[in-house]
Amino acid sequence: MMKAGRGVYWRRRRLMCNKSLLTSQNLLLLKSSPRPLNCVDHRPHVITHAPYNEYKATEIDGKLIANDIKATLATEVCNMRSSIQKVPGLGVILVGKREDSLSFVRIKKKACDKVGIASVVLELPEDCTQVEILNAVEMLNHKESIHGILVQLPLPSHLSEEKILNAVNVEKDVDGFHPVNMGNLAMTGREPLFTPCASRACIEVLHRYGVEIIGKKAVVIGRSMITGLPTSLLLQKHHATVSVVHAFTSNPEHITHEADILVSDVSVPNLVRGHWLKPGVVVIDMGSTLVKDNNSSNGTRVTGDVCYDEAILKASLITPVPGGVGPVTISMLLSNTVEAAKHAYQWTEQS
Amino acid sequence: MMKAGRGVYWRRRRLMCNKSLLTSQNLLLLKSSPRPLNCVDHRPHVITHAPYNEYKATEIDGKLIANDIKATLATEVCNMRSSIQKVPGLGVILVGKREDSLSFVRIKKKACDKVGIASVVLELPEDCTQVEILNAVEMLNHKESIHGILVQLPLPSHLSEEKILNAVNVEKDVDGFHPVNMGNLAMTGREPLFTPCASRACIEVLHRYGVEIIGKKAVVIGRSMITGLPTSLLLQKHHATVSVVHAFTSNPEHITHEADILVSDVSVPNLVRGHWLKPGVVVIDMGSTLVKDNNSSNGTRVTGDVCYDEAILKASLITPVPGGVGPVTISMLLSNTVEAAKHAYQWTEQS
Repeated sequence: MMKAGRGVYWRRRRLMCNKSLLTSQNLLLLKSSPRPLNCVDHRPHVITHAPYNEYKATEIDGKLIANDIKATLATEVCNMRSSIQKVPGLGVILVGKREDSLSFVRIKKKACDKVGIASVVLELPEDCTQVEILNAVEMLNHKESIHGILVQLPLPSHLSEEKILNAVNVEKDVDGFHPVNMGNLAMTGREPLFTPCASRACIEVLHRYGVEIIGKKAVVIGRSMITGLPTSLLLQKHHATVSVVHAFTSNPEHITHEADILVSDVSVPNLVRGHWLKPGVVVIDMGSTLVKDNNSSNGTRVTGDVCYDEAILKASLITPVPGGVGPVTISMLLSNTVEAAKHAYQWTEQS
Repeated sequence: MMKAGRGVYWRRRRLMCNKSLLTSQNLLLLKSSPRPLNCVDHRPHVITHAPYNEYKATEIDGKLIANDIKATLATEVCNMRSSIQKVPGLGVILVGKREDSLSFVRIKKKACDKVGIASVVLELPEDCTQVEILNAVEMLNHKESIHGILVQLPLPSHLSEEKILNAVNVEKDVDGFHPVNMGNLAMTGREPLFTPCASRACIEVLHRYGVEIIGKKAVVIGRSMITGLPTSLLLQKHHATVSVVHAFTSNPEHITHEADILVSDVSVPNLVRGHWLKPGVVVIDMGSTLVKDNNSSNGTRVTGDVCYDEAILKASLITPVPGGVGPVTISMLLSNTVEAAKHAYQWTEQS
């Protein structure tokens, strides 16, 4: 087959770009997914913020975004209940008594309560067997009132995370960690049923603050299954030019310094210093580490990957930790669960 | 949980790197896959080539590599036949009479014959229905003598490529296009049963010519499901720092100029010019376009994406088109099929 020459190809795509045929906002709508469960749009408006100046970045208010999403979801759940006398259900599997896992599950359960999602937590002992946890997954897979299943990670090392996550019904995989969902996230022209919540939160934050993604240079530090990897895939799906930096990267600051959008997810406090950043960059800090803090009432505080005091002088927008992407991530879990229930009941706001 | 500080984290990983605990050669062996079907190692030796000089790159001999792999596979198939009176089987589904598809299928069938793989081609008319092709897939899924299934792409536009490829049994998905295989390719710490052939060919060529991948900057131009996307994921799995350039990337030459390894897969002749390249770069040209050529007997010739005459003066190693990655890609299809059969029969050379 004869192809157009180099110049024509590149020029044609540029024209598409200039004409804004595809923008970050409408990208998902253009996808040819038969069931675009991720296409729910909670974005009633773009948050206005001060233009970039050389002195201080605008801090992204994750709680504000999360509350707005939760309010929309609460209305939707209320309408579902009135319309078909059903509510979305989330099943959580919690193994052991890790303090951080217990805290995360508590937060997720509270968020479910707030929007009217029914949640159940199956608690298994630290020394439970693979068969026991697989049975718990299977039970939730078959339970009609459960539309989303979440296995709280990390699992004790004697359990196969891979086998357990693969056992979750793809249509209830609201964490988006099933390889079918991850594969469809990666593949050009495909849409997963569910996208991992932290990655959706990253895009949501960018949308809410009017950050154009298409054609922008995005650098993701870290490639974890939960956050870094799916975020790089999702940014690429939104037509960013994505580079992934990891522990084997030499001079990572040379690469991050080119970024228009920088995402960090390695949970290494103060990894990203001011000189790693291009002036005006948008910084999404997804790291979360508990560090000692003698000024805090319990002697600890949560911190991100970015040296905030330095970054705020270089970036145009920045997410704080805590209060940045975290709350939006929780609201995305709720959103995925509501979408799963809507699909299961074949219900829409209009139905 | 308390984490080590920035310096410690980065230093620890560097130490791992310096100690060569992980090298490109042994990376796959370290993976914890239950069934590492992709771990077959056809690499008896590294091809020696002249050191990089500023005048001319060494041309990678894809045919030489492919013949070596095919010889190894032929021996393996012969041993399988002697040992269990079985041979690997490849089922090909061909829809319509596209000249390029007919040609590709002919080449694949001939390659199968050469190593002793039994191949069958199911030919369906251009106007066949979705149900007819799904029935053909299902028939091959259940046929015991068929261990690999290949649906020749592209399909006519009235057929859903997604639904048809998803119907292929994951354990016979020798093209590696099933979302489960693609998801496991993408996910950190997972291994797909099969990796797309062109991507495996890229890594094979790099290994054969002794190109270290770990920690290197790799730039992939293009993000097609067949080649660009899985190649970027596979390079990342081998710990390269990967950037993906596509049609929405501004000034792609600024990014490609940083690459230690450049892969191009957009089938746009002469897209990659000399000034896009860093001196000493390794160039893997995966583009393939039929262009007019009055000097050729049939008036056409196949060309890649890279302006070869310019690139050969900048690169250290370069794949020609034709005769570069193409023949190795075919041999990777054979390799995947042999691995599928070995798994199906639970047979190894030692058994």
